Amino acid sequence: MKDYPLSVEQLLTLKTRSGRQALGCFLVEGEKAVEEALESDCEVRRIYVTDTYIAKKGKLATDIPCTILGERQMHRLSSVATPPEIMGLVTLKEATFADLLNNRFIVCLDGVADPGNLGTIMRTTDWFGFSGLLLSEQGVDPFNEKVVRSTMGSFFRVKPYVSKNLLQDLKALKEKGFTLVVADASGGTSQLVQDRPVCLVLGSESHGVQPAVKDLADEIFSIPGKGQAESLNVAISAAIALYEYATGE
Amino acid sequence: MKDYPLSVEQLLTLKTRSGRQALGCFLVEGEKAVEEALESDCEVRRIYVTDTYIAKKGKLATDIPCTILGERQMHRLSSVATPPEIMGLVTLKEATFADLLNNRFIVCLDGVADPGNLGTIMRTTDWFGFSGLLLSEQGVDPFNEKVVRSTMGSFFRVKPYVSKNLLQDLKALKEKGFTLVVADASGGTSQLVQDRPVCLVLGSESHGVQPAVKDLADEIFSIPGKGQAESLNVAISAAIALYEYATGE
Repeated sequence: MKDYPLSVEQLLTLKTRSGRQALGCFLVEGEKAVEEALESDCEVRRIYVTDTYIAKKGKLATDIPCTILGERQMHRLSSVATPPEIMGLVTLKEATFADLLNNRFIVCLDGVADPGNLGTIMRTTDWFGFSGLLLSEQGVDPFNEKVVRSTMGSFFRVKPYVSKNLLQDLKALKEKGFTLVVADASGGTSQLVQDRPVCLVLGSESHGVQPAVKDLADEIFSIPGKGQAESLNVAISAAIALYEYATGE
Repeated sequence: MKDYPLSVEQLLTLKTRSGRQALGCFLVEGEKAVEEALESDCEVRRIYVTDTYIAKKGKLATDIPCTILGERQMHRLSSVATPPEIMGLVTLKEATFADLLNNRFIVCLDGVADPGNLGTIMRTTDWFGFSGLLLSEQGVDPFNEKVVRSTMGSFFRVKPYVSKNLLQDLKALKEKGFTLVVADASGGTSQLVQDRPVCLVLGSESHGVQPAVKDLADEIFSIPGKGQAESLNVAISAAIALYEYATGE
């Protein structure tokens, strides 16, 4: 572990995936996200607040070390136009393949690139009471600040596992008894029943699921469309599949 | 109607709602959006292209007047980091209350503020073959360029009607035989059947549906959640409701 506290210059490197991986931590912005982090099983290493925050809310009731930052510094660190008055520095902790096996429903994203889509998928997954998430390395980093923000607090309850070899991991899930369902507009069933563990694969916004993954599919999940739209947004497809599985009998 | 062609300075005013309303038109960016506009029943007044576009694709096979713009000008007009090589100037045309009555399913958004959410809802509505959209004045302008972009081509097939008096219009829809269904996480049915015309109301990202609208509800639509997430994204809720209605019997 690196020495703490980090300088603002070091914290600024957390805006990139490589920076987060080098320092082994990421920043969460705003009171709600910090609270969610504190309530989770993640390690919050340090809290950053402004004087304004302390003046309004008083000292923080926590043993976690706290650093006061100026508003200009918060602005530099923040990813939003109106910077928060509080941020938390949280240890990066990805789930493992073994963690995935504790789920009966796993959402697998093969290259989803948009942070808002990933965050929304995590929020929806949490809504339906699931937590398994398998990501390919080609997609957006789940610790991207826009992902965290768009989960609206669900971030710490969904456990992303980033696979270095997606095909191998999907084969291993099949061997463990998971039915591999691939979402594809080309036609298939829109039924997803709860009688067996399922890994649902959704592809990237621009290319869909890669052919080698599609070849592994036990079933194709397809949402019947009647209009002229070419496709659905990936977070929408994921939500309808989650809803089907959660409410199907 | 104003004199054409518009100057670049005038086109820049189209970045705001008031500017679009003053000039009665809006810009669509990129080849796909321009093609969709040309195929629709909307009036495309002028096309803007770069020299690069003409060099690659040749002259446009259309009678619509065309202006060549420099890349720097395109960059100023565009809402994205990589500006398009082609844009279209399209006449603003909102649907009317009477148009709404041609639908059996109407999505009503009471103050939805995020352009990505509105665009995604339009795309999903189109996917399921519906086109009725009732918006309150407090929400994002449907002709916002981010809305158009996130519809992924569905923009010209869904007809937004922006109500100046939402309560009055909802009452009028009820009188015309529509069942008013309000989406709310507080509990209700998740069944939406096709045996009658439905107007589904979804609230803003931060405040939900306003109480006066909720008081008009014939039914509450609620998506059963089992996790700890506080709510679903509004575009996700809309999609699940559309799916339920489109596939329910």
